[in-house]
Amino acid sequence: MTQHTLKQFDVELEEIRRGVLQMGGLVETQVARALEGLASGDLALLDAVTAGDKEVNLAQIQLDDECSRLIARRQPAATDLRFVLSAIKAVADLERIGDEAKKIAKAARRLHSADVPFTPRVGLSQSAQLVLEMLRTALDGFARADASHAQEIKLKDAEVDTQFKGTMRQLITYMMEDPRTITSSLETLFIAKSIERIGDHAMNVAEHVVYMVSGEDVRFENTQAVLGGKH
Amino acid sequence: MTQHTLKQFDVELEEIRRGVLQMGGLVETQVARALEGLASGDLALLDAVTAGDKEVNLAQIQLDDECSRLIARRQPAATDLRFVLSAIKAVADLERIGDEAKKIAKAARRLHSADVPFTPRVGLSQSAQLVLEMLRTALDGFARADASHAQEIKLKDAEVDTQFKGTMRQLITYMMEDPRTITSSLETLFIAKSIERIGDHAMNVAEHVVYMVSGEDVRFENTQAVLGGKH
Repeated sequence: MTQHTLKQFDVELEEIRRGVLQMGGLVETQVARALEGLASGDLALLDAVTAGDKEVNLAQIQLDDECSRLIARRQPAATDLRFVLSAIKAVADLERIGDEAKKIAKAARRLHSADVPFTPRVGLSQSAQLVLEMLRTALDGFARADASHAQEIKLKDAEVDTQFKGTMRQLITYMMEDPRTITSSLETLFIAKSIERIGDHAMNVAEHVVYMVSGEDVRFENTQAVLGGKH
Repeated sequence: MTQHTLKQFDVELEEIRRGVLQMGGLVETQVARALEGLASGDLALLDAVTAGDKEVNLAQIQLDDECSRLIARRQPAATDLRFVLSAIKAVADLERIGDEAKKIAKAARRLHSADVPFTPRVGLSQSAQLVLEMLRTALDGFARADASHAQEIKLKDAEVDTQFKGTMRQLITYMMEDPRTITSSLETLFIAKSIERIGDHAMNVAEHVVYMVSGEDVRFENTQAVLGGKH
């Protein structure tokens, strides 16, 4: 490759990096707004999240396309190829986080539109905060090709899983005490499950960064030991 | 490329195709056995499914590695590149189907080990049958690079979604009538949710086949209209 095409290649790689981060920012906003709408009952905000998922899907299609065209045209090797393949995988996880944000928004809407006024019985804000931190740290690692926070993210994921189990136990107690709360408890349970899954996907992104940086596939490594068994 | 390396290239592509189908077969068996164990209460079978998930994860790591080495060494273009990228994506969906099979096995184990003998209250065999058919059709399409069944799979997915909603309504009724069934009903609900997600992933595989064959990204296209809105 000439100096000129090499520079052009760098520009293209940088565009993909920027695209992933932009999509990451969009997805982060979707999650934050879904949770804000859940807390406040702002139905317009919740509907905006649902509608906004189209933009997330579009971002995935565009980035996938950019990545495969770059592979075809530039035939990247070693680090560059790992970067592009990691980008494709990270984008798939981001898209799924977007799906979960939409699910939260829809469930929150049903809760706040129900005949019985919705009173939250379990606190989800702590685990919501944790998964947003995990997502931010993972994206930051992607931006700087820095995998040093993977372990920290893994520990937070274990904490989120523990909190989910606690939430489930609490909700079961409420449902048993007052069967009239079953429907709204189930909606809340699904929201808690979505938050937990967002944590899983953020951890996946962190693992793609490890692969990108080191060429090492750390998925499933000691997962059982750290997480104490997945639900 | 010389005739010789061209042939070698074909052999490598064929190996990837065979690897994906083998992993698909493994995952299909995992799902079928988890559901069989759920129905029969065979705890040893359920434990075998849980243990077998490691093999699924290993298959993904190996195939991912094969695919990225092939891209680096052979620099495939056009159809071949689309095939390899589709394989990477299909394998990610297969791995997640494997996760769901493991979740079903674990929930089934809890149900059958509970103090109260487990009596199934909702029928899941119809939707289980449907998602297994979807998976088989999608893998068959991958094997033969044939995308003609994508629409049929999409319609089955919509049917599975409808059945899931019906199951949820039924379970809510049971829980309200007899709060002692809440715990086991929730386990059943999570199993139903896993079956529904297996259908989603099978549909994803079918969509990767469409991309492989036509270069067209059909994800999210009319999804809402056909599915009548995702839960």
